[in-house]
Amino acid sequence: MNIKTALIQQKRSANLQANIDQTCAEIREAAAEGAQLILLQELHNSLYFCQIEATDCFDLAETIPGPSTELFSALASELGIVLVLSLFEKRSAGLYHNTAVVIENDGQILGRYRKMHIPDDPGFYEKFYFTEGDLGFEPIQTSLGKLGVLVCWDQWFPEAARLMALAGAEILIYPTAIGWDPADSEAEKKRQLEAWITVQRGHAIANGIPLIAVNRSGSETSSDKRNQIDFWGNSFACGPQGEFLVQTDEEEATVLVDIDLERSEQIRRIWPFLRDRRIGAYADLCKRFRD
Amino acid sequence: MNIKTALIQQKRSANLQANIDQTCAEIREAAAEGAQLILLQELHNSLYFCQIEATDCFDLAETIPGPSTELFSALASELGIVLVLSLFEKRSAGLYHNTAVVIENDGQILGRYRKMHIPDDPGFYEKFYFTEGDLGFEPIQTSLGKLGVLVCWDQWFPEAARLMALAGAEILIYPTAIGWDPADSEAEKKRQLEAWITVQRGHAIANGIPLIAVNRSGSETSSDKRNQIDFWGNSFACGPQGEFLVQTDEEEATVLVDIDLERSEQIRRIWPFLRDRRIGAYADLCKRFRD
Repeated sequence: MNIKTALIQQKRSANLQANIDQTCAEIREAAAEGAQLILLQELHNSLYFCQIEATDCFDLAETIPGPSTELFSALASELGIVLVLSLFEKRSAGLYHNTAVVIENDGQILGRYRKMHIPDDPGFYEKFYFTEGDLGFEPIQTSLGKLGVLVCWDQWFPEAARLMALAGAEILIYPTAIGWDPADSEAEKKRQLEAWITVQRGHAIANGIPLIAVNRSGSETSSDKRNQIDFWGNSFACGPQGEFLVQTDEEEATVLVDIDLERSEQIRRIWPFLRDRRIGAYADLCKRFRD
Repeated sequence: MNIKTALIQQKRSANLQANIDQTCAEIREAAAEGAQLILLQELHNSLYFCQIEATDCFDLAETIPGPSTELFSALASELGIVLVLSLFEKRSAGLYHNTAVVIENDGQILGRYRKMHIPDDPGFYEKFYFTEGDLGFEPIQTSLGKLGVLVCWDQWFPEAARLMALAGAEILIYPTAIGWDPADSEAEKKRQLEAWITVQRGHAIANGIPLIAVNRSGSETSSDKRNQIDFWGNSFACGPQGEFLVQTDEEEATVLVDIDLERSEQIRRIWPFLRDRRIGAYADLCKRFRD
């Protein structure tokens, strides 16, 4: 079964309503072109506020269910599409997560994934905002298949992809927000972009399933003007051998791609990595370091 | 510290002595060009005998220490080079391993790695010949650094690379013997080669250390004429961001490359994946499947 899937890669502004309106319009367009599964970038409602540590930014958080799930559930139901959201979840005062939400094509919230690996480096102060997820690595069953939804920084960790695959995920999906520091050299920028693509294609290969990453586009300057991220776009989809199915450039774009979930089984028959894992020798993966 | 490293990619014949003579000559040439670390392909002494299941092939196995380690230890000592061998180890009658051996530049055997993940598919009947390794994933300390030596099929398993890195490996090294089935389409061949390169570059990136794979060259037909493998060469080295440092094509070649072990720490400072691993949530990596 081919799943017609849309990747929506966007620039964001400080105008939340304009952002959301644009997202709704692009979802409608993608659905009109036949998309059954629609994927959005990380924290798609707003600017990437984690460039600074500011308590006011917690005002952007919302409960799940809440205003965004209400709005997008209605849209998913109207259009008959499965939708993956990425929201700033308010769980309690002082307790927030970076959370992906999967909406069924009837509008039902099927499940959520709370980002497990939280980055923190200059311009990406996520440990200030997000408590690390406590729901583990659990794929979410939809009418289109079992989705292994992870978020951004998770994409560098083979453990996350493997645990999703072991739980039966049929595809890996990464909403993400990653970009260049304009101070870096062109050579370093090229290495970073290629590393980001390569490590994810590696997860697809190691697990024999397709993978889709949806990244942000555009340049954002922090409100204190001290930091700038040039989000590098380059959203892509690859198959179970890591082969490219579609790839965007740095600009805003909605791209549609057919994802074939049945090909994975054929690939796993010729490359049966799951058969040969040495599970009796992997216990130290649960150690911080083997010293 | 840069380590001048040689990757020796070879065709093999049924003439063991000619193979070994060629290997010794090429090691001498590489050392003369300044190589400090010399890496050979998987099972470099012979044809890739695992194309068929035949009890006579066990005659190719030898003890470690044994004739090959004696020969190559003397050569390593004479030339003052660190050498990584790949041998068919006879441990006992009826008990054999696919084993890499690390020789110090004074000729001492520093350690061995017994291939942990054993493949078995048409033309690669390794489960018939090799018992799975029982020494775990332990890097081997040399005068040039701590080498994370793995073998061929291991290269598809992120767990193996991660365990080596967690044990302090400063570089990942894969002697390997992989090639095309001539019956496959050109598109499939391209996907397979690129997947093989990509998944390994992914290990370098995920662990922030350089990686070298040394593969076999040439076409080999099984003694029963029923099978042929076109070994695809393409030995390569990449740095801790997965960036290519050197890459060969399908032909026989010895290539030298400078490996910078100090760059890894700088990369791990900007991409601190080891800091953020969710070790409390990884226990299921030791399960066959999460069902």
